Amino acid sequence: MDNNANAKGGKEVRISISAEKLMHALLTVYRAVPPRTPLPILTGILFETKENMLYLTATDMEQSIRTFAPATVEEPGSAVLPAREITELVRRLHEVSIVKIETDGQTNTTVISYAQSDLTLHGFSPDEYPSMPETPRDTLVTLPQKLLRKMLKQVLYAVSTEEHRPVFTGVLFEFTNDNLNLVATDTHRLAMRTTPLEKQPNQLINVIVPGKTLNEMSKLLVQEDSDVSIYINENQIFFILNDIQIVTRLLAGKFPNYNLVIPQNTSCDVTVNTKELLEAVDRALLLSTPRRQTVFLQMQDNTMTVFFNAETGRIREDLQVEINGDQLDIGFNGKYLTDALKTVDSETVTFQFTGSNTPALIKPVGQSDYISVLVPAIPQKNN
Amino acid sequence: MDNNANAKGGKEVRISISAEKLMHALLTVYRAVPPRTPLPILTGILFETKENMLYLTATDMEQSIRTFAPATVEEPGSAVLPAREITELVRRLHEVSIVKIETDGQTNTTVISYAQSDLTLHGFSPDEYPSMPETPRDTLVTLPQKLLRKMLKQVLYAVSTEEHRPVFTGVLFEFTNDNLNLVATDTHRLAMRTTPLEKQPNQLINVIVPGKTLNEMSKLLVQEDSDVSIYINENQIFFILNDIQIVTRLLAGKFPNYNLVIPQNTSCDVTVNTKELLEAVDRALLLSTPRRQTVFLQMQDNTMTVFFNAETGRIREDLQVEINGDQLDIGFNGKYLTDALKTVDSETVTFQFTGSNTPALIKPVGQSDYISVLVPAIPQKNN
Repeated sequence: MDNNANAKGGKEVRISISAEKLMHALLTVYRAVPPRTPLPILTGILFETKENMLYLTATDMEQSIRTFAPATVEEPGSAVLPAREITELVRRLHEVSIVKIETDGQTNTTVISYAQSDLTLHGFSPDEYPSMPETPRDTLVTLPQKLLRKMLKQVLYAVSTEEHRPVFTGVLFEFTNDNLNLVATDTHRLAMRTTPLEKQPNQLINVIVPGKTLNEMSKLLVQEDSDVSIYINENQIFFILNDIQIVTRLLAGKFPNYNLVIPQNTSCDVTVNTKELLEAVDRALLLSTPRRQTVFLQMQDNTMTVFFNAETGRIREDLQVEINGDQLDIGFNGKYLTDALKTVDSETVTFQFTGSNTPALIKPVGQSDYISVLVPAIPQKNN
Repeated sequence: MDNNANAKGGKEVRISISAEKLMHALLTVYRAVPPRTPLPILTGILFETKENMLYLTATDMEQSIRTFAPATVEEPGSAVLPAREITELVRRLHEVSIVKIETDGQTNTTVISYAQSDLTLHGFSPDEYPSMPETPRDTLVTLPQKLLRKMLKQVLYAVSTEEHRPVFTGVLFEFTNDNLNLVATDTHRLAMRTTPLEKQPNQLINVIVPGKTLNEMSKLLVQEDSDVSIYINENQIFFILNDIQIVTRLLAGKFPNYNLVIPQNTSCDVTVNTKELLEAVDRALLLSTPRRQTVFLQMQDNTMTVFFNAETGRIREDLQVEINGDQLDIGFNGKYLTDALKTVDSETVTFQFTGSNTPALIKPVGQSDYISVLVPAIPQKNN
């Protein structure tokens, strides 16, 4: 069959759309396009028309993002365009208002016209593009976008990046009658944020959601006064944010019983100015090397002394703090300590210690819905 | 000899200085600290007191930067402190106003005290630090900082980064009776900027200044109403910018006769909107790959068509232009074309062509003090 000769006979798609709306939609779904994939079609974005709307979809087979924008549909249909090229083109159309998209369904070739110019792109057959799962009928729960973004920020730093223990690369979403708890841990630290639910969820369920998807999603949770609705089926979770739908596979496996890790009966409580401690640790880490990362804290006489010793020198910072309980010396990985402090909004933070070799509890003063746990560093020699 | 026991007996240096002024001085000289060096002492910054001033110096043996700041000198002397650690510390002293620096001259150990904290750093002996050359007595020429920064920006992009042909890694400073000409070329393109001299220089001389130093210096040319004075000795050039002195070795060798490269008797002049062409080339380069970088321009009937062909697709942009002369097709490396257009301030730019295989001249319309020359790309097959 001669594709070129019959091209005009193939199914055509023809749409016009605002360059700005198209750019916004492309940048949204582009987050789901895999940087590397053995399946070439996944480097494309699916364009589909539906009445006077253009739907865009991208997926890496684990997670999918879909959105839509109003368009003038002259000939309905679908096409798969190379994601990088179409997105980069539309980002660079600074003074163009309308973009015309024409696809020849037989050759999968698309011509994008703007002003007096055009780009011709070779795409893929939309028939080969993976289909999106059906959204379940009933909403599990609805939350303000702003709240979910905040909650995610407070736990995502504790997610593991080590792929060989999959459950630790996700965030536990624990739905109880009254609360939603988000929990993440990489075994060195744990973060837990809870929020009361206005309406009881339609299922009491625990699921583990991949951190990677939540990271991308949190960048899309930017509509201040809008909600996000969460739906769940057997092995997927759906987040609906106005015109954006994000679906991801749930992680299989059992999340550890995190309550066992949270220290009880602490013997020394220390309350310190969050910013002062963050800055002191930041300076102490000046002298750190990839192999030497442990910052030592010494609690005595209402002073917390931050120490760091290295070959190049040593640093000592004294902070005025409030100590209730025994004197204590403890060492933490400086980066983990910094990560935990950065998610704290409150002016002061309380450390609750049970000993020099046991996990410490970190609580923002005046906020009972967030805690983090930090395992001390194994003491190094010559320190 | 027991260094520790005798430490107190060694020469001590003691100074106090504003944290902000010290930060500014450190960030200035840090530009000359080599990222890698076989000589450990060059990873340090030389601190020297002189009356009520602290002088800081850094060098990589090719180029040096020196600056000074007012300080309270309790015990005069000199010290060499590790550059990265001292600079990073002072950058992170957000709410500290005064820093105290105390060096033990026998152990070369420095204690930097601030607020209730201190950093101890092991440094080097100032006796081993290379000495700075004497500034020549007579100024060669003085220019406004703003003008020199602009001139450098217009030529530095054409400097070669290939170390095996040293003269091309520098900028020619050509002092004539009336003008200073700056010229740079990497043999694929050439840029030349000229400026009239108010006062005749004390020597008519051509020197080649390393592009690397000029790049760093142009970032320091930020004092809008100040001048920079230029001095020259046998093998070095000195730039004095208020409180900053930059010295660099001149490059040996003969700069090519650039006048031979500048096209004469052009057969086709094309005037085009600078921003429109830049944006069109930028979009065309979307489809570029490391091996395919050539953008084709076709001049015909007062239209410049910008073409790019690749495996993934093709782009065609039409620009309204003014053509005087013959029709012409020509190809350029897209990045080189972009670099040349980015240094043009004027709304329109004129291309003067002599043929498809010979260098083209690029001139901003209405500005006679700046030109660039671009060698066409060797035609690729299958384009």
